[in-house]
Amino acid sequence: MPYISKKGFAMPESPIRKLVPFAEKAIAAGKEVIHLNIGQPDIKTPEVALEAIRNLNRDVIEYSHSAGYESYRRGLAEYYQKNSIDITFEDILVTNGGSEAIIFAMMTCFNPEDEVIVPEPFYANYNGFALEAGVVLRPITTYLKDSYALPPIEKFRELITARTRGIIICNPGNPTGYLYTKNELETLKQIVVENDLFLFADEVYREFCYDGREHFSILNLEGLERHAVVVDSVSKRYSMCGARVGAMISRNRNVMNTALKFAQARLSPPTLGQIAGEAALKTPDSYFTDVIEEYLERRDLLVDGLNSISGVTCPKPGGAFYAMAELPVDSAEIFCQWILESFEHKGATVMMAPAAGFYATPGLGAREVRLAYVLEQSKLLLAIEVLKAALIAYPGKIELSEKVSTAHGS
Amino acid sequence: MPYISKKGFAMPESPIRKLVPFAEKAIAAGKEVIHLNIGQPDIKTPEVALEAIRNLNRDVIEYSHSAGYESYRRGLAEYYQKNSIDITFEDILVTNGGSEAIIFAMMTCFNPEDEVIVPEPFYANYNGFALEAGVVLRPITTYLKDSYALPPIEKFRELITARTRGIIICNPGNPTGYLYTKNELETLKQIVVENDLFLFADEVYREFCYDGREHFSILNLEGLERHAVVVDSVSKRYSMCGARVGAMISRNRNVMNTALKFAQARLSPPTLGQIAGEAALKTPDSYFTDVIEEYLERRDLLVDGLNSISGVTCPKPGGAFYAMAELPVDSAEIFCQWILESFEHKGATVMMAPAAGFYATPGLGAREVRLAYVLEQSKLLLAIEVLKAALIAYPGKIELSEKVSTAHGS
Repeated sequence: MPYISKKGFAMPESPIRKLVPFAEKAIAAGKEVIHLNIGQPDIKTPEVALEAIRNLNRDVIEYSHSAGYESYRRGLAEYYQKNSIDITFEDILVTNGGSEAIIFAMMTCFNPEDEVIVPEPFYANYNGFALEAGVVLRPITTYLKDSYALPPIEKFRELITARTRGIIICNPGNPTGYLYTKNELETLKQIVVENDLFLFADEVYREFCYDGREHFSILNLEGLERHAVVVDSVSKRYSMCGARVGAMISRNRNVMNTALKFAQARLSPPTLGQIAGEAALKTPDSYFTDVIEEYLERRDLLVDGLNSISGVTCPKPGGAFYAMAELPVDSAEIFCQWILESFEHKGATVMMAPAAGFYATPGLGAREVRLAYVLEQSKLLLAIEVLKAALIAYPGKIELSEKVSTAHGS
Repeated sequence: MPYISKKGFAMPESPIRKLVPFAEKAIAAGKEVIHLNIGQPDIKTPEVALEAIRNLNRDVIEYSHSAGYESYRRGLAEYYQKNSIDITFEDILVTNGGSEAIIFAMMTCFNPEDEVIVPEPFYANYNGFALEAGVVLRPITTYLKDSYALPPIEKFRELITARTRGIIICNPGNPTGYLYTKNELETLKQIVVENDLFLFADEVYREFCYDGREHFSILNLEGLERHAVVVDSVSKRYSMCGARVGAMISRNRNVMNTALKFAQARLSPPTLGQIAGEAALKTPDSYFTDVIEEYLERRDLLVDGLNSISGVTCPKPGGAFYAMAELPVDSAEIFCQWILESFEHKGATVMMAPAAGFYATPGLGAREVRLAYVLEQSKLLLAIEVLKAALIAYPGKIELSEKVSTAHGS
């Protein structure tokens, strides 16, 4: 039998999705599974987007341009302009979700063995994409006890070697909710320019900043035009993850022309998703006011609920819609499987993402989980109740010596 | 300024799409551009698929399972069963078009520097995908003078080295229309098993076989269960290229589990495309009878028309919907750009794909083009007229010493 590749062997299972078979079994056994593992909001997709799909007035579902429909790219450019980001449609390549934008950006900018600095914990699939591109991730660890606050930004400089070619940030951060200050970004800019690096920013949660915080895009850092590459997506903004429509954005024409070659090879991004995405640009501002208010309530409900459980620590995130929590268990990995396989409370159980996969450093995050607060409040309340009961019943429970600080990090 | 990657630099532009900027300029200048460069049929998408989209009855466009909706995979398994291919839904991974299926299969099965044998000319984007995966394509050249007939299948054996890990075929072939006989596939099987290789077959044109020929799938080769990987897609079958829904199929569980890890990293294939794809499975058989008859008429019209032009040779393909033609020009590359930039006839011009990009061997295909017969007959007739006039006007015309044979190769 022919062997699979080394890359295939080394490829990590997604911590967000690898427990799906256990969830499927739990559902088959009649349990309600509350999905906190994945950022799949139950928020309604804007009506304008759904209507555009229902009014589809074409006979052939054709390919689009490899970079995406020009009308959509022009619409996206207007969206950025409205957000005070000066971008033209030629700076935009429409992709199969934000995922493909990251892959294209990595393949365009980095060679195998190149090092890229990234604060950890980070969006777990960066590990997979880096492996696909042969890139080595060099993490800057942030800690739950500090609410995952970044260390002084100069720390990035310390990790730079002759092989360093880039820095990746997610802002606001998945899974920590961390929001970079303008000062931090200005310092990052200095480091990037001095060392001739690329700076990638995953800004798909741009709209979701809380407690009066404001998002600052790396596209607004002057003098970074040739270095800045932004990853974006309609998935979270308009609660249409299944559209699979993202974007890679850069003013570096060389980068965009190269990425277009990768895009040409796969022909085009999805036509129907683009129709929905273009229509969604007309979503009224009130939609976001409502959605942000709802996420804020969900965040407080989940985070406060978790912190009320003995031994659980959950810092309050400042953006996006995830929370990281430390649980009083031997292994979050085993606990997350156990709760699906062997536990239920009021007929329900909870699916969570074990956090080890969100780190590049082996051994970190072993007692942490990522939870998405994307479900209605009644479900979040039930999830907290389930978790509380599960932590009493779980055989691998441990006593944490003291509750770690939950001070605010950003 | 940071440099782009070596891979990005080496990545070929798609010969199918790289002339798009010239076509856009021609259109802007008021010319009608007849698109023979790309397999984007004007055939209508089945009404059942369009209706499913128009009747979208959900509030949230959610992610699907990373392997695609189970209901769709079960429906696909039934489609294969109906085509006498014994496949279960667990052997199927739904992908972002056939493109992603090829990439996943390559990353799953091959290491960088591994050699893969492929008859040339082949689907041009294999060059790009191989480059992305670091795979070295080792071509078996077929020639226009032989109507691109395969050499004796034993030729594959001669190319095997210690680094050979697989064979890729496209059946029926894009761009040549070549259809493999069952005997040829049985011999390929022997070679594959003896050398413990993977055999990939791109079977996206399965339905489009002409002149009484029948398609035989590598999934029906007994004893090849661990070696066979099939790439499929709804794009051509149902004329819905923009759905971006394909599939990777194998009974090798190790291969499928590994491919699923790559699939998890990019979350899911497009939800809307899958809804269309699942509905399209109910397309009545009469749709295919009509479509195949139409393609057959278009093929004969295009091929006979091309061969009627002095100096042009175009063998008649036995499947798919492309024809390869040799033109009496210094360079097909230059000619294809010139005809868009500097020529029009009755207000129209023709976009073609220069064939050099469909070869792995440098220098081959320099006077050949690929033409897709996917447009209505009146457009094909006009295209032939334009081409005839263009070949008279083109400054780089050459006299070919003699017309090459157009004997049938398969």
